[in-house]
Amino acid sequence: MQIEVIAIGDEILRGTTVNSNAALICTELFRQGFLVSRQTVLPDAEELLEAGLKEALARSDLVIGTGGLGPTCDDHTRSAAARLFSAEMVFNEALAEDLRTRFGKDLESATDQATVPKGAHLLSNRIGTASGLVLSKESKRLVLLPGIPSEMQAILTEELIPYLLKTMPGVVQVTCVQVHLCHLFESLVDPTLRALSQSYPSVQVGIYPTLGFLTVVLQGTDSSSVHQFEAELKARFSSYVFSSPKGKIEEALHGWFVREKKTLALAESCTGGQIAAQLVSIPGASDYFLGSLVTYSNSMKCEILGVSEHAIKKSGAVSRETALEMLSGVFQRTGADYALAITGIAGPSGGSAEKPIGTMWAALGARGESPEVGTFLVKGNRQMQMLAASNHLLCALWRKIIYGIPVFPFF
Amino acid sequence: MQIEVIAIGDEILRGTTVNSNAALICTELFRQGFLVSRQTVLPDAEELLEAGLKEALARSDLVIGTGGLGPTCDDHTRSAAARLFSAEMVFNEALAEDLRTRFGKDLESATDQATVPKGAHLLSNRIGTASGLVLSKESKRLVLLPGIPSEMQAILTEELIPYLLKTMPGVVQVTCVQVHLCHLFESLVDPTLRALSQSYPSVQVGIYPTLGFLTVVLQGTDSSSVHQFEAELKARFSSYVFSSPKGKIEEALHGWFVREKKTLALAESCTGGQIAAQLVSIPGASDYFLGSLVTYSNSMKCEILGVSEHAIKKSGAVSRETALEMLSGVFQRTGADYALAITGIAGPSGGSAEKPIGTMWAALGARGESPEVGTFLVKGNRQMQMLAASNHLLCALWRKIIYGIPVFPFF
Repeated sequence: MQIEVIAIGDEILRGTTVNSNAALICTELFRQGFLVSRQTVLPDAEELLEAGLKEALARSDLVIGTGGLGPTCDDHTRSAAARLFSAEMVFNEALAEDLRTRFGKDLESATDQATVPKGAHLLSNRIGTASGLVLSKESKRLVLLPGIPSEMQAILTEELIPYLLKTMPGVVQVTCVQVHLCHLFESLVDPTLRALSQSYPSVQVGIYPTLGFLTVVLQGTDSSSVHQFEAELKARFSSYVFSSPKGKIEEALHGWFVREKKTLALAESCTGGQIAAQLVSIPGASDYFLGSLVTYSNSMKCEILGVSEHAIKKSGAVSRETALEMLSGVFQRTGADYALAITGIAGPSGGSAEKPIGTMWAALGARGESPEVGTFLVKGNRQMQMLAASNHLLCALWRKIIYGIPVFPFF
Repeated sequence: MQIEVIAIGDEILRGTTVNSNAALICTELFRQGFLVSRQTVLPDAEELLEAGLKEALARSDLVIGTGGLGPTCDDHTRSAAARLFSAEMVFNEALAEDLRTRFGKDLESATDQATVPKGAHLLSNRIGTASGLVLSKESKRLVLLPGIPSEMQAILTEELIPYLLKTMPGVVQVTCVQVHLCHLFESLVDPTLRALSQSYPSVQVGIYPTLGFLTVVLQGTDSSSVHQFEAELKARFSSYVFSSPKGKIEEALHGWFVREKKTLALAESCTGGQIAAQLVSIPGASDYFLGSLVTYSNSMKCEILGVSEHAIKKSGAVSRETALEMLSGVFQRTGADYALAITGIAGPSGGSAEKPIGTMWAALGARGESPEVGTFLVKGNRQMQMLAASNHLLCALWRKIIYGIPVFPFF
């Protein structure tokens, strides 16, 4: 069976948008044993779009398109698809009613968005207004999904994949597991993976580094080989492993803090609220997370956290002393059981020979215990440095509370 | 002239690699006035690869491929291209010598990498071992670049673009402008865009909504039409416009605060540091941004910001009173000239009939002036709600300081 993915939008052809939708669709399909044979990006222009869809349907059995389903003047995908399948466009009253219930009676686009090719199977969009659609003729199927990534992803995983698994015969089941490892680089894990690949040649291995940790993806049709590979890998890096359905260190920490009924507060400088925003991105964070004192200026470090002007003058705002005083301040100003403090130099300027750009000082610990304090260096551009610092520090907290090991230095 | 970009590699079709090479090529080409009409991703398999390249050459005048130029068993691009152009593969001694000089006498792949289709124009690769190639026949041109992003990018900008500008006649210059509009939905802007499109039919229009604002992209070969369209659009939505090279409201605010030498501090609850992290993502934020008191728990709202327990008990943590007391607290606790405060209910739980999920109360203003306070509703999942709340509020601050208009309600 041939499968193609088509993204629609001039912004991708101008290069302003990277085609991450196609990667997401291919990843989810591959996880279910569907291998995509081609990706294409087509312009919004109606004629070129229709011609491109027609070509793809001639080549392949299943074509999945994303984009161009909105109600505005540059959205032509629905009408192009209707012509290809000789289906007239019909108004679906139930769909319009659902849109009005969710988005208000005066939703202007309700009529447009509820007018769909006759005979199309609808894939419900619980986030936005554009439903997914499946058009079929003989053995050919065209799926249309919206281009907004959050909507596309929700319909893909919740509606389309189950629909395909139910309606497409002969899919090979692939077992796929993920192992998340704190504070490790590809080069440190690669020799182990090569050795294990010798023992389990049927298992396909992928390494996906994130800033601060990495994920190893193991997949294969022989489920027991995949799981044995996984067990041996985890045993080799036992004090680095964290468990999280979504592969996020903040999700792993969230689970522990809620189970243990402990609270956490932060003092952030260079990360500017990034660590707090990551923690809060997991629903229910208020069950353990008290807040973060984002003291970006020196004056706020002194006023809010009680950092001494002496410490800043003597050692600098990025120093062991300042990190320790920030930690002490956040324990004093909040009732938190655990706390983290971080201060550092995020680029592109502000570095020195002694403290280059990317230098971080951090302190963490439990109330009443002596804190851990140390320094580390993060690389990349400003956003990458902030994210790496945040992930490194959250991994450090995880390794301290779960494995009870000294946290600094990380490597 | 039709231009296509083809990326080659199974890893893109499995979804493990996002096709950022294509975005980079399209961006660089578009900057020079070359508009790409299609992107394609093909597998490493030789037959499918050759068929895909052949199709593209039939459709288009210029096809730019990346990937599959390495010396390993899954690299077939060079030989597939040679067959398509009926060119025999010949060993290039000068190229081999250059590779041995740069990578050592025992470079095993030197012979392979220096064997190229006869008649191909070479594009020098100063980073890696695979040269770029241009094959021509009549009006058709096929360019091959390596898939490693750093090598691809260097050859693209240093070799290919100058080569194309020199050898391709009649490049059409495209004018492209972006207009960023606070607090507007697609449906509010669409009627105006449709009307303006009638007046300026040569201008291509794209609408790209972000949570909290949207960007309209106008492009065309007639520069004066594009700029007139832009001027009329801006005039129609004059109190909504913000200017930012990267299309980010935090960048627009950053510029204003630094120019005016004013400072800003925040009190965040439901956004959990998201607003601060956005502001800090722009280098140099320390020139105006003091920090954010992320008081996620009620206890921290009282302890850190001095919010009264009475206000929380009487009106709730998400209320006009609490937002105003948070704002007053952040002015008291910091020396900021301007401040924002926000408290709300980010889903998926915690809503009520009176205050549904997504309800936000916010206050903002300048020190010593009477604050603006109001409520608004954000939709989508938790991350989307946080980002929407952040962008809405930053847009509100922009519209207050630039246009001096009452901020609430937004719409």
